[in-house]
Amino acid sequence: MSFDKAAQFAMDFQRATVKLTQSFEPQKTFLVESWDRPGGGGGCTMVLEDGKVFERAAVNFSQVHGELSARMAAAIHVAPAPFRATGVSLILHPVNPFVPTIHLNFRYFELDGGKDWWIGGGTDVTPVYPNIEDAKLFHTSLKAALDPFGAELYGQFKKECDEYFYLPHRNETRGIGGVFFDYLRGDFPNRRNLWAAVGEAFHKSYFAIVEQRKNTVFGPNEIAFQRLRRGRYVEFNLLFDRGTKFGIESAGRTESVLASMPRFAEWRYNYAPPAGSKEALAIEMFKPTDWLGMADNDLLGSNAAPTSI
Amino acid sequence: MSFDKAAQFAMDFQRATVKLTQSFEPQKTFLVESWDRPGGGGGCTMVLEDGKVFERAAVNFSQVHGELSARMAAAIHVAPAPFRATGVSLILHPVNPFVPTIHLNFRYFELDGGKDWWIGGGTDVTPVYPNIEDAKLFHTSLKAALDPFGAELYGQFKKECDEYFYLPHRNETRGIGGVFFDYLRGDFPNRRNLWAAVGEAFHKSYFAIVEQRKNTVFGPNEIAFQRLRRGRYVEFNLLFDRGTKFGIESAGRTESVLASMPRFAEWRYNYAPPAGSKEALAIEMFKPTDWLGMADNDLLGSNAAPTSI
Repeated sequence: MSFDKAAQFAMDFQRATVKLTQSFEPQKTFLVESWDRPGGGGGCTMVLEDGKVFERAAVNFSQVHGELSARMAAAIHVAPAPFRATGVSLILHPVNPFVPTIHLNFRYFELDGGKDWWIGGGTDVTPVYPNIEDAKLFHTSLKAALDPFGAELYGQFKKECDEYFYLPHRNETRGIGGVFFDYLRGDFPNRRNLWAAVGEAFHKSYFAIVEQRKNTVFGPNEIAFQRLRRGRYVEFNLLFDRGTKFGIESAGRTESVLASMPRFAEWRYNYAPPAGSKEALAIEMFKPTDWLGMADNDLLGSNAAPTSI
Repeated sequence: MSFDKAAQFAMDFQRATVKLTQSFEPQKTFLVESWDRPGGGGGCTMVLEDGKVFERAAVNFSQVHGELSARMAAAIHVAPAPFRATGVSLILHPVNPFVPTIHLNFRYFELDGGKDWWIGGGTDVTPVYPNIEDAKLFHTSLKAALDPFGAELYGQFKKECDEYFYLPHRNETRGIGGVFFDYLRGDFPNRRNLWAAVGEAFHKSYFAIVEQRKNTVFGPNEIAFQRLRRGRYVEFNLLFDRGTKFGIESAGRTESVLASMPRFAEWRYNYAPPAGSKEALAIEMFKPTDWLGMADNDLLGSNAAPTSI
C-alpha cells in the first residue's frame, strides 16, 4: 500500500531530521509526544526548545483519516469522500540571527481507499539577514535534486513557492524561497524518490549553513531585528498559511499546529531601518529572485554575513 | 448629517483618549500620522511606544467611503451599495503585567447616502493576571452606563462580547470581557449618547485600574507569562478578529491595522503553569463569567493583585 509506504517515509524522515538537529544540541533532548486525533488517526510531535543553536525546533508526523466535509473538499478541489492523509512537517527557528529559519513539509493524500491520491510538499528558507552565498547553496541543491525528475520542475516549483510564501500586506516574500508542489499523482515510487531527493537536499544544504553561521557574532541590534522578522513569520502563519488554518478550523491538536510559531516575536510601529544599513538591505531581498542567475559579487552580495567568532 | 456628527465624535474621542494616555507618559509623545486611503477617505493614526506605563498605545481614527464589493456586502449581511464608514479604535498594551490591555472600538456605517445606517462598537479588557476587583469595577461601570438605554442591554452586549472574543483552539476567552454591539439603528442622538456613555465608563474605570496597578512589583516570571498571554492576543487578532481580517483583505493601511499587535509576544510548546500558581489561576479565569454576581471573597478572589510598591 502506497499510504503505508508514505507514512513510513514520513516517520523515517522525522527521525533523521530530529537526529541531525539533535547533533547540534548535545545538552538538550527533544520532547516526544504521541497523540490521537478524535476524528481518526493521530501523530507524534517532537519539539526542542531553548537550545544553544535552536530556540525552537518542531518536527511533526501525522497519519489521519476520516470523511472530507463539503467545505474541506471544496478547499482542495475534489468531491467529498473518505480520505487518509499522512506526512511530516517541520520548522526550525535558530538562536543566531545569521542562521535562517527553515520549513519543510511532505504530505500524502488519498481518497476512497486509494482510487485517487497525490503527494505535495515543499521547503523554504527564511533568513533574518539573507545572503547570496546561502541562497545559492540552498537553491542549487534543490535544483540538482529535482532535475532528474524533470528539467522544468525546479523552475516551476520555485515559482509556486515565491507565490505561496508571500505577504501581500507587506509586499514581501516570507524569505528567500525554495520549492513548493502539490497534486503530484502518477507513479508512487517515483514520487517518493522525489520527496527523498528534496529531503536530502534540505538536510545537506541547511545543516551546512547552520554549521557555517552558528558562531557568527551578533548583539542586541541583530536580536531586535530578528524578532521583528519573526513577527512577519507569525503574520504569515496565522493570516495565510493553509496548513495552520486547516489545523485550527478542523480542531487539530493546537500545540502541534502552533509549534510552528517562533519562540519570540516583536512588533514596532512603522519600523524602517536606516538607509544602507544591513537591515535595509535585508528587507530589499524579500522578493522573488533568480538566485542561481545572480553573480557572487552582485550588489546584494555586499550583505554577506560578517566574520565568525 | 449623522455621518459628520459620528466622525466628529470619533475624532473627539480619539483626542480625549490620547490626552488621558499621555498624562501617564510625560516623557513620551504620540506619533501622529494622517493618511489617505487609495479607495477613498483616510484617517489619522496616533501611536506611542516604549513608554514607562504603556509599551504600545495605538489610537486610530478613520473616515472612509467607496463601493461595497459583493464579498464585503455579504460579510456584513447587506446588499452591495455605496458606503461610508467612520470610527475610532484603540488598543493600549501596558508594561506592567498587573495592568490589563484594553481595546475599544466605535464605528458608524451608512449605505446609499444614509438610507440605511447603524452603529457598532465595544470595549473589552485583557489582563495577564485577572482579579475580581478590577473585573467588577469595569463591568459595573459598563452596566451603569448602559442601563439608561435599556435594562437588558448590558447583559446582551456582555454575552456578545464573551462569544466574539473567544479562542476556540484554546478554549479560552481573550480576557475578562466587556461589551460588544452592532447594527444599532434608530435614533442617532440616542445612539451617540450610548457611545458617549460607554466611552466615559472606559475612561473612568480603565485609567483608574492603570493608576492603581501601575506600580505593582513584578519580575522576569511575570514578564514571561505576560508575553505568552500576548501570544494569545496575537492569535486572536490574526486568526479571528473581523476588523483585522477586513483591514488586511481590503488592503487597508497595514501599519494602522496591525498597530493592535503587542510590542512583544512569546510562544512555548505545551506550556502549563504549576497547579495552584497564580498563572494557573489566571488561565482558569479566561471563561465567560458573571463578574457582577461574584462575591469579593470568591475563590478566584485569591488571585488579587499583590501589594504595590
